Amino acid sequence: LDIFETIHNALSGEIEKINSILLETIKVPEYLVNDITSYVLKRRGKKIRPIITLLTSKMLSGNINDASIYLSCAVELVHIATLIHDDVIDCSSIRNGKMSPNEIWNNKTSILAGDFLFSQAFKFMVKAKNLEALELLASASAIIAEGEITQLRLQNEKRIITINEYFDVIEKKTAKLFSSASACGAISCDINHNTIKKIEEFGFLFGKIFQISDDILDYNGLSKELGKDIGLDFFEAKVTLPLIILYSKCDEDEKKFLETRFFQNDKTQNDLKYVIDLLHKYSIHDEIYHIMNKIKCDAINCISTLYNNNTYKDLLIELIDHLIHRKR
Amino acid sequence: LDIFETIHNALSGEIEKINSILLETIKVPEYLVNDITSYVLKRRGKKIRPIITLLTSKMLSGNINDASIYLSCAVELVHIATLIHDDVIDCSSIRNGKMSPNEIWNNKTSILAGDFLFSQAFKFMVKAKNLEALELLASASAIIAEGEITQLRLQNEKRIITINEYFDVIEKKTAKLFSSASACGAISCDINHNTIKKIEEFGFLFGKIFQISDDILDYNGLSKELGKDIGLDFFEAKVTLPLIILYSKCDEDEKKFLETRFFQNDKTQNDLKYVIDLLHKYSIHDEIYHIMNKIKCDAINCISTLYNNNTYKDLLIELIDHLIHRKR
Repeated sequence: LDIFETIHNALSGEIEKINSILLETIKVPEYLVNDITSYVLKRRGKKIRPIITLLTSKMLSGNINDASIYLSCAVELVHIATLIHDDVIDCSSIRNGKMSPNEIWNNKTSILAGDFLFSQAFKFMVKAKNLEALELLASASAIIAEGEITQLRLQNEKRIITINEYFDVIEKKTAKLFSSASACGAISCDINHNTIKKIEEFGFLFGKIFQISDDILDYNGLSKELGKDIGLDFFEAKVTLPLIILYSKCDEDEKKFLETRFFQNDKTQNDLKYVIDLLHKYSIHDEIYHIMNKIKCDAINCISTLYNNNTYKDLLIELIDHLIHRKR
Repeated sequence: LDIFETIHNALSGEIEKINSILLETIKVPEYLVNDITSYVLKRRGKKIRPIITLLTSKMLSGNINDASIYLSCAVELVHIATLIHDDVIDCSSIRNGKMSPNEIWNNKTSILAGDFLFSQAFKFMVKAKNLEALELLASASAIIAEGEITQLRLQNEKRIITINEYFDVIEKKTAKLFSSASACGAISCDINHNTIKKIEEFGFLFGKIFQISDDILDYNGLSKELGKDIGLDFFEAKVTLPLIILYSKCDEDEKKFLETRFFQNDKTQNDLKYVIDLLHKYSIHDEIYHIMNKIKCDAINCISTLYNNNTYKDLLIELIDHLIHRKR
């Protein structure tokens, strides 16, 4: 069994509940809204963010209450709404092997569908009746948008960004929602403030690993089977960790290539192959595994004093290992 | 003094508070976010939605508490976020005589800036610490998006929509937020449920009048001075109430013109002039004044049993009269 099958077995009742709540509540008079939302809801795969909320609740209380279920739904919808807007912004036509909403409908409808789902997310937060969780998720949503604006600005500057700039972006656009997802799992257990803070930090580090591993995949993934193309960041001239570390290690000629060719619009598959070869030449992947493993140690530290011999804690840590080594 | 000056005098302390809260809280590390948000916040004019929240609170309790202030801020931000996305969707370059954010920055950044402000709106709702208001505003936000999707769909169908379809759209995209704005003013006074419902209905009818009067302005307004062009709906082939009623009254040849020419992309100022002349020929404006006055009666009925000889109630009704007769 792969880790996601194991988790889906362990949480099958709750994940089913989330799926049906999501599908059932989004039925409005306008059929176009229902078409788009049911499309994006059915398209979604692993539901890693709500899973983190659920696993955290289970780890801390052995139980998953309604608040935790509603917050899981909210977290997933914030993510889906963000993805819909991302696809419009990146002019993406495919995500996870399926056509993106802007490709099937259009940009205008997709922007509004994103807004609709974002509002639905807040309706679920209200159902959880917890102002602390609401504050956390509202802040996370604002910070995601801020991080994406920073990312756009840096992309427009057409230069190799620094590692600090990179971490600033991924902490905002990705890690913050993961940290809120795990904190929501803790908050709905009515646990003490210190523990919530530790859990929040755990989720934050988890989210960083998630994004770094996603960024490696873009150069290193097994693409065709999942319909996810490699080289998307490369062809969009989005500078990510592999490129930043490569740039710090390579020689002057190679640096020159990265500084100029990377930011041109007519890059070819050969250019991508050249960069992938450079990544191998300088063992950049090992370097990044090292970074992820360091973050993993910090993450485990956050929850080390909490619970031992706990199945759900073990699953959270296994999930990190899976991310670090995933090829798709 | 015009009605807005009178209201701004009556609520000067509170409106100043709202302005400074809005400007002060939106200071984040990413300067681009601050640039855009301070631009759109400074651009905004009449703040009619938060004013309704404030007037409602004053009418009901003689007082405006912090919850009411925060909810006013939230209502305004939901509106501003919606406008930013609207400008992207309509490819607008000007609003209220000033360049739209998508024109100064770009569509991508504007979509994200809208998301950012939308999230900020929810942070303000959380500060008001009232789940009932949160539920109302989250629902309103979803319904706005739904209404705008319906509007886009109808626009794509390139036909004269029915009056029921028109009201369905404006109730969702406009009236619902007005009804929530007034209900928030009541909720923050801790008033009984029945009164809240009446106030909510009052705001709903107020919002319908607001949108109808806005739609007339597009054919009838004094444009140049405010930088607001007339004929925007006409050139975008957006069917609104004046056209719907005109279509029901005019002769076969004129009907033919409206059915075909209205939906072509190469319409000219002469075509606009022809439609404006038809509107006069059939006294469509009188018809629409009649509709608005009927809605006004219903609105007054909603609050007639509540408070008499109340300055703030009188201002709300004066505001309706102003909308019905406005030329800009």
